[in-house]
Amino acid sequence: MGKHPIRMVLKKNAKNLKEVFTSKKEDEFTVELKSKGICVTVVSKKRLSTLANSDSHQGFLAKVSVSNIATCREFLDNSRKKSLVVMCDSIQDPQNFGSIIRACECFGVSGIIYSKNRNVGITPVVTKASVGGSELVNLIPVSNLHSSLLDFKEKGFCVIASCISKNAQDLYSVQMPEKTLIILGAEGAGISPILKKNSDLQVFIPMLGLIDSLNVSQATSLFLSKWREQN
Amino acid sequence: MGKHPIRMVLKKNAKNLKEVFTSKKEDEFTVELKSKGICVTVVSKKRLSTLANSDSHQGFLAKVSVSNIATCREFLDNSRKKSLVVMCDSIQDPQNFGSIIRACECFGVSGIIYSKNRNVGITPVVTKASVGGSELVNLIPVSNLHSSLLDFKEKGFCVIASCISKNAQDLYSVQMPEKTLIILGAEGAGISPILKKNSDLQVFIPMLGLIDSLNVSQATSLFLSKWREQN
Repeated sequence: MGKHPIRMVLKKNAKNLKEVFTSKKEDEFTVELKSKGICVTVVSKKRLSTLANSDSHQGFLAKVSVSNIATCREFLDNSRKKSLVVMCDSIQDPQNFGSIIRACECFGVSGIIYSKNRNVGITPVVTKASVGGSELVNLIPVSNLHSSLLDFKEKGFCVIASCISKNAQDLYSVQMPEKTLIILGAEGAGISPILKKNSDLQVFIPMLGLIDSLNVSQATSLFLSKWREQN
Repeated sequence: MGKHPIRMVLKKNAKNLKEVFTSKKEDEFTVELKSKGICVTVVSKKRLSTLANSDSHQGFLAKVSVSNIATCREFLDNSRKKSLVVMCDSIQDPQNFGSIIRACECFGVSGIIYSKNRNVGITPVVTKASVGGSELVNLIPVSNLHSSLLDFKEKGFCVIASCISKNAQDLYSVQMPEKTLIILGAEGAGISPILKKNSDLQVFIPMLGLIDSLNVSQATSLFLSKWREQN
């Protein structure tokens, strides 16, 4: 949903763009898409909102074939020596999930693990908030976060949980290894106990005000940036 | 708008809470507010949406008296030796502005400068996205960002513009002094040339993917965190 995400798919892998629905017949972008041989269908604004289940489509919605979804096994079989992976523990807010994916794309994250049932999926709102990142970053939807976590640990990933706890280290003093998996929890609920228990490190961002925490997508950016700075 | 921001005002300065409008007669929070002597008025959900000009009120909207607005002069007269200030150059998106304010509160920013005319104001959507930060951080709405910038420079602030340009340094190599003003531009438009020209340093966040940039509130968090780490 939205111009930017569609532009990203066009840039990365145009043949994944199966069809674009638009309410803007004469738009520059519509002309560009047609000139590149993309199938463009003009529909009413209302129809677009129904298809997207949202009004924020900016007149554009696309049907894409997805080539960036992997299983844990597939991902780990191709995993490199240096790899940053993000695990989302039940992020329900599509804006937050989309912004997390955007940050992951910006910082070159290798893969995003999330629960098939307990996390918001790749909805139109998510694709738009991710500015197309949802079509660019490797996605690893799984049935069980805990068993996936153990798979990654077995393959040498250091698991860092973003949370406040007695034993947590602050982000500024932590040293993240080249194979790192960062777990992020939903605002409010946080990370589930079993994932926290199985993490190698618990790390928090020092807060100086009255508000408990940053937005989860801001926190994500800080963790990813810190890893990048060190690796 | 929303429970969290109201809770923050209650925490920081309860007497600023002039009246709370709610559609939830029997709610725990309603009871708590009443027990603290806050005037609570029960209205319909629809009336609440009209008053807030938004549906995301979660049943709560408050009228607050504002004690955290200052002029440039007032702010600078009371400015400390160590001070981090944020200047927003025409942020129009209320979600982004609110999230920026939230991050500012979390990192102990001394003040937020923004244009009275070219920036979104403190709307209900902004207060909610800021989780109450809009009532906690010093706000400095000004008529002219450029002349305010010069005032801060004169008082010894180092001005850092967040932007990509030929002479820009990357965030990881920059050293920020204890008196720093960070300018943030709107996504897309960026920082206006006159502000950029008058900055002491231009700093960018290295991006590794196809997407040009992070969300502006994520970028803000990285700048603020870097300053905190160094000061």
